[in-house]
Amino acid sequence: MNWQDIFATRMDRMKASEIRELLKLLDQPDIISFAGGIPDPALFPTEAFQKALGNALSPKNQSTALQYSVSEGYGPLRDWIVGKMTEIGVPCTPENILITSGSQQALDYLGKLMLSPNDTALLGWPTYLGALGAFNAYEPNYDRLIPGGNRSAEDYAQTAKDNGGRVKFAYMSVDFANPTGETLDQTARENILDLADDLDIAVIEDAAYQALRFDGEPIPPVLALEVARKGSIDACRTLYCGSFSKSLAPGLRVGWICGAADVISRLVLMKQASDLHSSTLNQMAIAEVANTIFEDHTAKLRQTYTARRDAMLSALEAQMPDGVTWTKPEGGMFVWLTLPKHMDGGELLRQSLETQRVAFVPGQAFFADRSGKNTLRLSFSLADDAQIAEGITRLGAAIRAAL
Amino acid sequence: MNWQDIFATRMDRMKASEIRELLKLLDQPDIISFAGGIPDPALFPTEAFQKALGNALSPKNQSTALQYSVSEGYGPLRDWIVGKMTEIGVPCTPENILITSGSQQALDYLGKLMLSPNDTALLGWPTYLGALGAFNAYEPNYDRLIPGGNRSAEDYAQTAKDNGGRVKFAYMSVDFANPTGETLDQTARENILDLADDLDIAVIEDAAYQALRFDGEPIPPVLALEVARKGSIDACRTLYCGSFSKSLAPGLRVGWICGAADVISRLVLMKQASDLHSSTLNQMAIAEVANTIFEDHTAKLRQTYTARRDAMLSALEAQMPDGVTWTKPEGGMFVWLTLPKHMDGGELLRQSLETQRVAFVPGQAFFADRSGKNTLRLSFSLADDAQIAEGITRLGAAIRAAL
Repeated sequence: MNWQDIFATRMDRMKASEIRELLKLLDQPDIISFAGGIPDPALFPTEAFQKALGNALSPKNQSTALQYSVSEGYGPLRDWIVGKMTEIGVPCTPENILITSGSQQALDYLGKLMLSPNDTALLGWPTYLGALGAFNAYEPNYDRLIPGGNRSAEDYAQTAKDNGGRVKFAYMSVDFANPTGETLDQTARENILDLADDLDIAVIEDAAYQALRFDGEPIPPVLALEVARKGSIDACRTLYCGSFSKSLAPGLRVGWICGAADVISRLVLMKQASDLHSSTLNQMAIAEVANTIFEDHTAKLRQTYTARRDAMLSALEAQMPDGVTWTKPEGGMFVWLTLPKHMDGGELLRQSLETQRVAFVPGQAFFADRSGKNTLRLSFSLADDAQIAEGITRLGAAIRAAL
Repeated sequence: MNWQDIFATRMDRMKASEIRELLKLLDQPDIISFAGGIPDPALFPTEAFQKALGNALSPKNQSTALQYSVSEGYGPLRDWIVGKMTEIGVPCTPENILITSGSQQALDYLGKLMLSPNDTALLGWPTYLGALGAFNAYEPNYDRLIPGGNRSAEDYAQTAKDNGGRVKFAYMSVDFANPTGETLDQTARENILDLADDLDIAVIEDAAYQALRFDGEPIPPVLALEVARKGSIDACRTLYCGSFSKSLAPGLRVGWICGAADVISRLVLMKQASDLHSSTLNQMAIAEVANTIFEDHTAKLRQTYTARRDAMLSALEAQMPDGVTWTKPEGGMFVWLTLPKHMDGGELLRQSLETQRVAFVPGQAFFADRSGKNTLRLSFSLADDAQIAEGITRLGAAIRAAL
């Protein structure tokens, strides 16, 4: 059977990630890994989940928890999110919220909602790898969004037209982004809204790390800035993607999209056609855990991760040779390193796995145009102080050897 | 903001279902509903899930259960499914299994895998509404698959070509199908494999109700028949979609696709890009519950649902006027009624909700060509004997009034 003839054209764009292949090597115990970028499981609020799942399966609730439910999501969870969004400057109602299976599904749905083949999505170089993966399925072109850049709306529109479609949205991760750890300042956010208004396109705001700000002043979400301009969420073009994966636990796969009710109602139809609804049981558990411990728990996470970030920044300061620079994130899980121009992060990974037993993610995969060879991503979320000190020392040695 | 200009062309195909709108009326307590088609929550194996979730959140397991996991699915669950598939005539390995968020997601992924706009999918008139919903997102044409029909492969191929694409797959629900309750006999299954071989297309076998056979001889899955022909699952074109929604509980959203390893590996990439993985916690819980009580529990379900089917068939025999015919399902949840040609199931629903307080699903929505006005779907899964007797009496009265 010739499957190549059967596959849709979109499958040409869905390739195995070389990172994923490389990272299969990381199970060996003597490797210190800064590759992951996943929460520390020692910090999961397991007791709260035990209690919440027990309640969800109580005689009163079990027939709801184990049954089919509505595609838009579990009412009390949407209510909690409405409260949280209002708190961060986005007054809304449950009709503005769709529950998704993690914010990865939110990105998939928003690509599916807007992208016909050859349309253009604007995003940063580098950007979240999972966003490229999700959008690729809908066969778009990418054009580079530069916060503070001076390319005109006309130029973006013309380039998209020349490529056979139109610009549909600008995507950006706003706070302590994966992979760079950088945060868009308020001016940059306002500029993106200006550009989106000029182009009459949507804005996808990826706020997966929003709850993990360690220091610095919180910056209003793009959606909050737009609500301030336009008076109501239902007049806004920004679609905000939230997640419980970094604040509570990723294994339950619960996230959300917040946006204009007219768009959410279309996404509800998409959800119904794609997987009916996210797990009822998990939504109930997340709702109870969020209602009882969200603030205390995320405070605890911030405290632990702050110490790890500080340890990593100190170690980098002490160990990196001249010519290497890195970001100073105000939250999240990542530091982004830029090596001297001639160096190759992929080659460095191969060498440092072999000689120094230290792992990270080469940066090139995060660039839609495959530039950025001389970059790499380090995560501090999983390593303790001793591992960070030792691992960064080893990384410094690997870099010096490759200089 | 003009969202219509922003939406992808596929959104034209994703419309609100009129059924869903009608069924919102069903919350009133004096209505007897045969509309649902969902499992009886009184039969959920709640105790087994309590135990399994407790184990998943034990100190030993919590860091797995609440964490990110691999896109292909939880190992022990894939192992259990390998055992089950082998038992029903499909020897395979974990590389042949992808865990999905219910079999609805399996249908979405298979549409996404194969359908470019204007390609053709073959399916029955009527067919599962959720399959039409899932496939519609990928903008196909539909052509009618008639088991035992005599249209040639050339004719199907030419029709698809005239419509701007090619035939990509044949889809069918094989056992006690939603909506008709009918089962494809072995000859029909073999004929579909012959046609698929001639057309060089895939076959999507929807086996959501497979565990709910009440009587009659089990018929081998299409995939088992093809393995028997071709010697190995990896040489097969059939992709089997299974589900725990009807056998254990739908609220956890766990199903699977079983097929050639080369296809599964592409679907793993799709899963990674669309929602990373299905809930780790839920996969662990389903694995334990399946390993401990699957056979006993499904035997109990079959016993209860058999009695309900029998009650419904007896009541129909006693209450339906001449000119009404219905299917005699050997399992599942549905009986399919055909009214006299001039009648309209949608109109009948409006009248019977008003005058008789009895609900069902009009059949038209299940037809890709919107024919089948004079049909309706009844589910016996949720009603007890008294409700069935009373409800079918009322339905008979409504039909007589409309004759």
